[in-house]
Amino acid sequence: MKRIAVLTSGGDSPGMNAAIRAIVRTGISAGAEVIGVRHGYQGLVEGDFTLMDASSVSGIINQGGTILHSARSQAFRTPEGFQQAVDHLRAAGIEGLVVIGGNGSQTGNHALYTRASFPTVGVASTIDNDLYGTDYTIGFDTAVNTALESIDRLRDTATSHDRIFVIEVMGRSRGFLALHVGIAGGAEVVLLPEIPWTIEQVKRTLDAGYRRGKKSFLMVVAEGAARGEEFARQVEEATGYETRATVLGHVQRGGSPTAADRVLASQLGSAAVKLLLDGEHGVLVGEQHHCITTTPLADAWSHDKPLDPEMLDLVRVLGA
Amino acid sequence: MKRIAVLTSGGDSPGMNAAIRAIVRTGISAGAEVIGVRHGYQGLVEGDFTLMDASSVSGIINQGGTILHSARSQAFRTPEGFQQAVDHLRAAGIEGLVVIGGNGSQTGNHALYTRASFPTVGVASTIDNDLYGTDYTIGFDTAVNTALESIDRLRDTATSHDRIFVIEVMGRSRGFLALHVGIAGGAEVVLLPEIPWTIEQVKRTLDAGYRRGKKSFLMVVAEGAARGEEFARQVEEATGYETRATVLGHVQRGGSPTAADRVLASQLGSAAVKLLLDGEHGVLVGEQHHCITTTPLADAWSHDKPLDPEMLDLVRVLGA
Amino acid sequence: MKRIAVLTSGGDSPGMNAAIRAIVRTGISAGAEVIGVRHGYQGLVEGDFTLMDASSVSGIINQGGTILHSARSQAFRTPEGFQQAVDHLRAAGIEGLVVIGGNGSQTGNHALYTRASFPTVGVASTIDNDLYGTDYTIGFDTAVNTALESIDRLRDTATSHDRIFVIEVMGRSRGFLALHVGIAGGAEVVLLPEIPWTIEQVKRTLDAGYRRGKKSFLMVVAEGAARGEEFARQVEEATGYETRATVLGHVQRGGSPTAADRVLASQLGSAAVKLLLDGEHGVLVGEQHHCITTTPLADAWSHDKPLDPEMLDLVRVLGA
Amino acid sequence: MKRIAVLTSGGDSPGMNAAIRAIVRTGISAGAEVIGVRHGYQGLVEGDFTLMDASSVSGIINQGGTILHSARSQAFRTPEGFQQAVDHLRAAGIEGLVVIGGNGSQTGNHALYTRASFPTVGVASTIDNDLYGTDYTIGFDTAVNTALESIDRLRDTATSHDRIFVIEVMGRSRGFLALHVGIAGGAEVVLLPEIPWTIEQVKRTLDAGYRRGKKSFLMVVAEGAARGEEFARQVEEATGYETRATVLGHVQRGGSPTAADRVLASQLGSAAVKLLLDGEHGVLVGEQHHCITTTPLADAWSHDKPLDPEMLDLVRVLGA
Repeated sequence: MKRIAVLTSGGDSPGMNAAIRAIVRTGISAGAEVIGVRHGYQGLVEGDFTLMDASSVSGIINQGGTILHSARSQAFRTPEGFQQAVDHLRAAGIEGLVVIGGNGSQTGNHALYTRASFPTVGVASTIDNDLYGTDYTIGFDTAVNTALESIDRLRDTATSHDRIFVIEVMGRSRGFLALHVGIAGGAEVVLLPEIPWTIEQVKRTLDAGYRRGKKSFLMVVAEGAARGEEFARQVEEATGYETRATVLGHVQRGGSPTAADRVLASQLGSAAVKLLLDGEHGVLVGEQHHCITTTPLADAWSHDKPLDPEMLDLVRVLGA
Repeated sequence: MKRIAVLTSGGDSPGMNAAIRAIVRTGISAGAEVIGVRHGYQGLVEGDFTLMDASSVSGIINQGGTILHSARSQAFRTPEGFQQAVDHLRAAGIEGLVVIGGNGSQTGNHALYTRASFPTVGVASTIDNDLYGTDYTIGFDTAVNTALESIDRLRDTATSHDRIFVIEVMGRSRGFLALHVGIAGGAEVVLLPEIPWTIEQVKRTLDAGYRRGKKSFLMVVAEGAARGEEFARQVEEATGYETRATVLGHVQRGGSPTAADRVLASQLGSAAVKLLLDGEHGVLVGEQHHCITTTPLADAWSHDKPLDPEMLDLVRVLGA
Repeated sequence: MKRIAVLTSGGDSPGMNAAIRAIVRTGISAGAEVIGVRHGYQGLVEGDFTLMDASSVSGIINQGGTILHSARSQAFRTPEGFQQAVDHLRAAGIEGLVVIGGNGSQTGNHALYTRASFPTVGVASTIDNDLYGTDYTIGFDTAVNTALESIDRLRDTATSHDRIFVIEVMGRSRGFLALHVGIAGGAEVVLLPEIPWTIEQVKRTLDAGYRRGKKSFLMVVAEGAARGEEFARQVEEATGYETRATVLGHVQRGGSPTAADRVLASQLGSAAVKLLLDGEHGVLVGEQHHCITTTPLADAWSHDKPLDPEMLDLVRVLGA
Repeated sequence: MKRIAVLTSGGDSPGMNAAIRAIVRTGISAGAEVIGVRHGYQGLVEGDFTLMDASSVSGIINQGGTILHSARSQAFRTPEGFQQAVDHLRAAGIEGLVVIGGNGSQTGNHALYTRASFPTVGVASTIDNDLYGTDYTIGFDTAVNTALESIDRLRDTATSHDRIFVIEVMGRSRGFLALHVGIAGGAEVVLLPEIPWTIEQVKRTLDAGYRRGKKSFLMVVAEGAARGEEFARQVEEATGYETRATVLGHVQRGGSPTAADRVLASQLGSAAVKLLLDGEHGVLVGEQHHCITTTPLADAWSHDKPLDPEMLDLVRVLGA
């Protein structure tokens, strides 16, 4: 392959730029040209391409967001748009494509690979960590630390005022973010989309805490398990204790990536290019057990990635 | 005076601990004993006192919240509770009191001074910066920087996705926080409780921005001017552009204080003790034009503290 | 004036980009063209100019360093180089110049104004805060907070190990940075270039601390008062206590500017353009007593800016 | 076991407090009493013990350092001191001990287990990551991120001034910290204790960079590979380019732990208690391939833990 392309798609996650940098520099180092596709799949449909040299990715390793921009594309989902995308890739002499993104983004990637037989590799990047085939996705570590900073700040006020605080973090269907934030933040209660809960259980945990002399509580809820403001009202009604909510929202998607996310993005981006050049296509590059691994793209979202039961147990024992 | 007391009251603000430290150490250095009152005015009513030595305030200068805790007190507002508070102060041999807090807290302070002729001094501490008699209150600088961090993170995503983001910051009746955050964050729109606004104006600003080639926008709203989520919906309806909200909530009250807040708290706390010992009572200690100044307590909330019109102008010119 | 220019010079300081942004956007808003000069005075000598539109300063308010770059210029100090600089300015139709920088940079500015009668305005930007005519310079607040973060980290280890730590901060001839860092960090000893000190005094302070039960100490030294590593050795010899040094170096110059530095930079940059257009030249724009003020350029470095004696006193009383 | 003890030893690392918290709460949850030993092995020799209840570890998960303090102990290395330590443990009815610390600390742990047959478990905690039997040690992730923050700040100045900066990080014999910091910081050169280097190689890398148009460079050196200031001088002599050094020193040991370090510390601390109670002794608890694993204590420092050759390669390819 003499010319490959890279795009970022879906919700942005910190470390995408570090991955782009690794892809560009590894590609050039291996003798290939690297084309950046702007605005995700929409850029494929429109042929919004730019040649990237080594200096085009200087000084971006520490920046959040994505210099290639991201966007939703209805057009790419239509047969015509899909064909335009493929045509643009071929017309530009692009022989392989790296897609940096999460769940939905890798579906598009899979379509290109299976329906158009276009050589692609996926790089797992989403703050939700909900892709099978990688222990951690790019951006997850940063998002956990961002939410944690807010928890640390809330605890100051919770302790000073003997109060209950609820913090809603992202996670519609998966609770990885909430679980890590909860343990790292020393939360007394963590609600996850995967685990049913009742307000009575929550009340019992709080009551038990008060009996042991606790005077302030932090509760982390994944948006898929409960909405922060509504849950705070439920707790107040059920217990009579004043309860306040914080909703972090998109703040969790931004910020300079942590060291771990930059290293992971560098490793996965670099590996993706090598795989593309070596002829291993249609796979998601991930990191499992600290090794770079590949997984067939379709498995990435069809296989379940379970929560660690030991960590669920830690919440109960350590939040006590 | 041989024995003075200190309490923190109202919403906590970063730097309260630095002020407590300065009060304790300045008091001891001047030969006085310093008593800490726990849980604000409620602690006065209940006589919840503790003797503080120099080492009791070691290692707290960098901590958010207040080691003396804060609380609301209905009891203190009743004639009986008020009398109990005064009795406890006198019974403990306390000859002077420093009250660290905002608007509402200094009202209680004023009551002690005028109705019970008890020697008091107030230290201006609130993230809202809404006290007359000081250019900045303790905690304001930290709160601005905390909100700013979130803005910086949102901008990454706003830029990557060509989107509009709304961030709601604290400020029911005053817009100091929103104004500083807006200018420092480079916001295109800032809504303040003091300045009437219409959705048409906002739409015009956005439209003009889009015409000039802007593709993402950040809008900072004080909670007293608009509620984040509702405003985001209004913008979306009026413009058709996707708009998302973040509501920081109590996160803005916590965190390790900035250097400026620690220095200000050290200066004001130290000055408060000197005033108390020198016989200047019933005043709020503040910092005006980089000098330590005093203001009669009643003026602190009855006089208006205007926004700087030049800064309002900066939003318009620089957000362009 | 229809065309003005801006350059950054000397050591970079956080907030320079926010000042450039304010200058560009205020200039454009007032109907002028704004030219950026790259690489400071060297860029003047070489005519390294670029036209800046409103979007050229998008997304830089939160970035450290300077997008216009800075450099030393021997050439500008020669009569020939100086004349070339003036010729380039005139040939490009530039009618006024804003110089963002510290002490040395404003000397060059003064030369242009007095020797070539070129309309200039200076914006006070240096982490040293050593310019007369402004209470604080752009970058100072960020540098204080950066050094403070390191102090907070050292205190963890100092406390855990009952040890003495020395931290050397910038400041060859002036101690503003060390003084603010020392008070905000709760340092027990602060050495400043302006205040003579002896190792015996330091030993007495440490001994007195140990007698009162203190077990760990933090000492902040300005590089002009003592070199960190050497001073640590002196302390170890004089007291027998293990002492370690940290030398922050240029780390203090970088980083995303604090809210206060961004606001100050926005205010000063905007004011500088207005002054230039209004015909007030040869002055330094600063902020005194929270008002925007101007000072004849020559006064900026020839007048002394004293340390606040009250703050010196605070170190002694609060570090006890 | 009805009563177990915990001590922290050696250089402190961020996350030690999170590990103490996990040990105390897991112990209590399993029905055991937990005794804290102050000042490491010296506290064993002196019998400096304190009973810890669940609330004694409240609010410490986010704090750097160690609330149990750490110290060197010559006494423990003597036969008499060692015997006193064992006697104190037995006299206090302590049946098992958890030692949180690095290399040297686990040697003492091993001595207790082998020479006194005392049931012990080690928890791997050091910023150097130089213990075999765990992929990462507690504190490593925080130290990498702390050094990275400084790199990000230096890059601002390096880029603005077209300069070379050297940053010396900890690591006398192992380069894990320098390698991760180098990749995450986008360093052009990384010097490690494990890899021989010459100034000629460094010069060639710089020269090649300059030829490709690079104008600023960041070089990360482990203290065991080169001393920052001396190396900067060597580079300046060899290349003629101005080069500046920053020496972070003990700053790398402090600070609030990252999410990853808090989670790891919670997992390892909790697992250590379970092992102790389940009768598996004389082992180091670590995390390998995201599983909690045990390794005989003696292996922890006698087995080599190699650097990842792929990561070494990444420095070369991505720093280009």
